[in-house]
Amino acid sequence: MTLPLVSIVGAGPGDPDLLTVRALRRIEAADLILFDDLVGPAILALAGHAQRMAVRGRAGSEALDQAAIGRLMISNARRGRRVVRLKGGDPFVLGRGGEEAIALAAAGIPFEIVPGVSSSIAAPALAGIPVTHRGIASGFAVVNGHDPSSEIFSAIEPHSLTLVVLMGLKSRGAIRRALVARGWRHDTPAAIVVSGSMPEQWVWSGTLDGLDAELPPERTGPGTLVIGDVVRLRSLIDAGEIGEMLEKAEVGS
Amino acid sequence: MTLPLVSIVGAGPGDPDLLTVRALRRIEAADLILFDDLVGPAILALAGHAQRMAVRGRAGSEALDQAAIGRLMISNARRGRRVVRLKGGDPFVLGRGGEEAIALAAAGIPFEIVPGVSSSIAAPALAGIPVTHRGIASGFAVVNGHDPSSEIFSAIEPHSLTLVVLMGLKSRGAIRRALVARGWRHDTPAAIVVSGSMPEQWVWSGTLDGLDAELPPERTGPGTLVIGDVVRLRSLIDAGEIGEMLEKAEVGS
Repeated sequence: MTLPLVSIVGAGPGDPDLLTVRALRRIEAADLILFDDLVGPAILALAGHAQRMAVRGRAGSEALDQAAIGRLMISNARRGRRVVRLKGGDPFVLGRGGEEAIALAAAGIPFEIVPGVSSSIAAPALAGIPVTHRGIASGFAVVNGHDPSSEIFSAIEPHSLTLVVLMGLKSRGAIRRALVARGWRHDTPAAIVVSGSMPEQWVWSGTLDGLDAELPPERTGPGTLVIGDVVRLRSLIDAGEIGEMLEKAEVGS
Repeated sequence: MTLPLVSIVGAGPGDPDLLTVRALRRIEAADLILFDDLVGPAILALAGHAQRMAVRGRAGSEALDQAAIGRLMISNARRGRRVVRLKGGDPFVLGRGGEEAIALAAAGIPFEIVPGVSSSIAAPALAGIPVTHRGIASGFAVVNGHDPSSEIFSAIEPHSLTLVVLMGLKSRGAIRRALVARGWRHDTPAAIVVSGSMPEQWVWSGTLDGLDAELPPERTGPGTLVIGDVVRLRSLIDAGEIGEMLEKAEVGS
């Protein structure tokens, strides 16, 4: 009988209730959890007896390099330990899960991918912003904001779809300039969601020309940028406030 | 105490284990579940005492129109029933969840959005295809394939990011032609994933010029198209076969 010795698991945007049922089961049964810094204590607390090890810091800083993470997964799996490689959001959305899957496959280790709720969709949603909406946006793009000089910012025809930028909080000034240079209007609706789905979720919305306004200093969580007309729907949907109201209601229930 | 009278819930790609923990709780506690045809019997079977009603058929055909769905949600919520509006994938990814949220907000009904695992990311992942990969694609776009003449197919610079098309299975010939006319190479790697995450998951991979080859007649589930160099990684990752192997192992364990 072959067991899934290694599970590459998406932990979702942060709220433990947004783990999938399979992710929760894998975390509960793990012997070893190798987690990224984006995965918070509320999720790690769900583990049973697992040893827990942080292997990657914020914004790409590396506690261990990719090869070392691969070796850790492989050596532990060969000793028969059930390894969970736990990543924020979905493991294949800018999470380097593909590299780890390739390393495991090359070593002949049975593994599985457990997709997660991606922050690219969920953080806007929980701020009341649907990434698509009939008559406004029939598609969306998710891009890495780490390098604002990337050609990816000129690859999309302005206003043709919703643009979601992950890991772009620090570079948002340069991203704004790249988009305006490409032809996006200064007054394109835009939003920033920090710590989407968490109790400390914080949302700014305005227009593209205000995107690099200063954030309150305590807003240090992972950020999602959303650019496009769908941001306007926030005032009609306002799931954020309703979510907060419900949160309080549930605590009291 | 205000309860979340209506929950607009993403059911994920189909496998019940890919529901979020919150989605599962809402389904179990519901008095009324209004579901789309994409949501299968394995998920509906998780409901407790709920009345279950199909409100939308496949490929946009409507059992009820959007206004009627809104009225049903509102009238039931006003009678104090807990309503779950259950949608395939994520409710805000081409799922018209925004329209329903606006209707509820306008009626003053407390509601919440429960994001789900989107098939746009998970179906490729479970076929061994990461939508992003370092050095290959630093972003991806998800577009509606229902109308291949849509400007959205010319809005993206060829080969700049991974293109994922939902609801494009029937129109894939016209989509292929639109992309080639826009400058995508005939030999761009491409894949079709039918019924992603389900036991009957079926995957074709090849190149763009083969995208409109005939499918086996029994492959009638929802399809996800993936176009871009990341499709090549499938041969190195092959999560599909490993997933299948594990599935059997788990049944036997």
